[in-house]
Amino acid sequence: MSEMYAIRRTRLREQFNAAGNAAALVSRPANVRYLAGPAPHGAVLLLGRTEDVLVCTEPPEDRPTEGRPDDTLRIQTLPGTFGDPAVAAADFAAAKGDDSLAVEEQHLTVTRHRAIRSVAPRLRVADLGGAVEQLRVVKDEEEISSLRIGAEIADQALGELLESILVGRTERHLALELERRLVDHGADGPAFATSVATGPNAGRRGHRPTDRRVEEGDFLSVCLGATYRGYRCEIGRTFVIGTSPADWQIELYDLVFAAQRAGRESLAPGAAYRDVDRAARQVLDSAGHGAGLPALTGHGVGLEIDEDPQLAPAAMGKLDACVPVTVEPGVHLPGRGGVRIDDTLVVRPEADGGPELLTITTKELLAL
Amino acid sequence: MSEMYAIRRTRLREQFNAAGNAAALVSRPANVRYLAGPAPHGAVLLLGRTEDVLVCTEPPEDRPTEGRPDDTLRIQTLPGTFGDPAVAAADFAAAKGDDSLAVEEQHLTVTRHRAIRSVAPRLRVADLGGAVEQLRVVKDEEEISSLRIGAEIADQALGELLESILVGRTERHLALELERRLVDHGADGPAFATSVATGPNAGRRGHRPTDRRVEEGDFLSVCLGATYRGYRCEIGRTFVIGTSPADWQIELYDLVFAAQRAGRESLAPGAAYRDVDRAARQVLDSAGHGAGLPALTGHGVGLEIDEDPQLAPAAMGKLDACVPVTVEPGVHLPGRGGVRIDDTLVVRPEADGGPELLTITTKELLAL
Repeated sequence: MSEMYAIRRTRLREQFNAAGNAAALVSRPANVRYLAGPAPHGAVLLLGRTEDVLVCTEPPEDRPTEGRPDDTLRIQTLPGTFGDPAVAAADFAAAKGDDSLAVEEQHLTVTRHRAIRSVAPRLRVADLGGAVEQLRVVKDEEEISSLRIGAEIADQALGELLESILVGRTERHLALELERRLVDHGADGPAFATSVATGPNAGRRGHRPTDRRVEEGDFLSVCLGATYRGYRCEIGRTFVIGTSPADWQIELYDLVFAAQRAGRESLAPGAAYRDVDRAARQVLDSAGHGAGLPALTGHGVGLEIDEDPQLAPAAMGKLDACVPVTVEPGVHLPGRGGVRIDDTLVVRPEADGGPELLTITTKELLAL
Repeated sequence: MSEMYAIRRTRLREQFNAAGNAAALVSRPANVRYLAGPAPHGAVLLLGRTEDVLVCTEPPEDRPTEGRPDDTLRIQTLPGTFGDPAVAAADFAAAKGDDSLAVEEQHLTVTRHRAIRSVAPRLRVADLGGAVEQLRVVKDEEEISSLRIGAEIADQALGELLESILVGRTERHLALELERRLVDHGADGPAFATSVATGPNAGRRGHRPTDRRVEEGDFLSVCLGATYRGYRCEIGRTFVIGTSPADWQIELYDLVFAAQRAGRESLAPGAAYRDVDRAARQVLDSAGHGAGLPALTGHGVGLEIDEDPQLAPAAMGKLDACVPVTVEPGVHLPGRGGVRIDDTLVVRPEADGGPELLTITTKELLAL
């Protein structure tokens, strides 16, 4: 495990050294996790010329499922009253004689950035940009294995919910029940706030559960995910409550299903992000649902639930093998509800069987 | 309700105008909520010379318990692909001829700050500092009423848990159960991640629940809170599992209880933050537990669970009436566990009966 973290840090170091920086300060929590392993809240990582230091304000805690920070790192725990570990790390870098430090300007606030510059006025402070985020895009098989287990857990939690009685229960209770089941099956916790949307709410992306109760004839859309060993996956499904769906429900469902399939089938190494988005989007567009569509139809997942790449009309770049993404088109008709279908898949070459579907719950339109 | 938001904005406007700024951009979510009411995720508020605009990337959603943004505001919903609403707001300010804009440097990242400056190069961009956070410190009676209801909900959830069988259940399950009960009793959700700590984990501040099961003879410490109408409170209690606590447990409990009482009793308008901290801290210090104590013994609560003031040794400032704070000393003995006792109280003058205790669950040492 330690070796893996050291290899990642070496790759990053090559990049910032090539850009003329002796040292780098990583402060975004998911980036610290990627390069150092599980670390206390607020910890930052200094990659220096001679050694790498994890700077914390509390000592690392042993957590059974997640483990500890990489033990080849020096761990520096500051006294609780010290303040900002990023400022302390800049001070270390300056004390070691580094003349330049790349920082994450996309994560540091203006106030923290100023404090770093003022504690080490001789240090040239540069921008690390999204260098770590870019390293995180392609996953290794161990990362994919964590995502796969998380997806199995989410499938199990969803499957159990479908076997229970739903009519009369509120969105909020169903969401809590799903989150309890995720933990029952071994998740560290939910990957994001579970969304349960009924009737006119169904099909809204990121809908926050309300006290509305499930009724006969409703669309019910659910979006949940598990965090497992820090990795976050996502699954979304839409169901109909009652014995038989109405015609408009079947029609809308078939349309979103076709869009989602088109998106999934366009996942391949070398496919442009925007082409995957277009594949899904044009199915909905040509049926007259173009106006209300969300800005993206999918995104990368990993240590964060929403990471690079974005599958969106203006996105630049192409998919690689071993990139896990969601494909999640949806249509919401104001006042009536709608449909969302969301899978997590890993991009794989044709020779390996094409995209690997991690979330395997059926996408037939179930009437519950 | 709208009037209240308008009054808050007027108070803020007087401040930034006095500092020479025509307009202000508020981006920190709790600050936007304070000045504009419940707003969509990522919304920012522009306080301009001629009008105030809430800039969103999605239309406001009606939420039954939380309501909608202040309807005297202009609401500007950007197309989903637009990007950063803070940049759009700066663009509006420049287009209206404002020559200076105060922004929240403690919240904006370096990258967003740069984008704001580059979209409106003629705008002088200044720092709003913690002006809104400072306005938020003293609460009105409606805010306190939301906190009071939240505290009642947390008391109910905790009380029900104490009536159930605890031995053999894991920290994670107990935490989930408490969160479900919070929602059952009408909370919007938990105010923060519920902490349940057993045996050697008990007494650790912010302990994240593990799969450890409750055992006979354990200390069990629990910290939870409800969010109600956006307002967040906190309660923490420690119990003993089994028929009779051991001597060391009684001794440690009595000590932490004495420290917590000393902290509570020192709450008064005009009391220095550091003196409240010292009142609690010196009880633990003089019993030889000074070394491992956390950096603070209490903090303000409101729209965020951890806001100004900090009750800590180096904190500057004095309490006012109508400031809700926690008093939460604790001692953790490595390998053995420990005790934390945490209340939310509102500072009130002696003439009004002194500090108002919001979290009324008993602080006797219960053996469960």
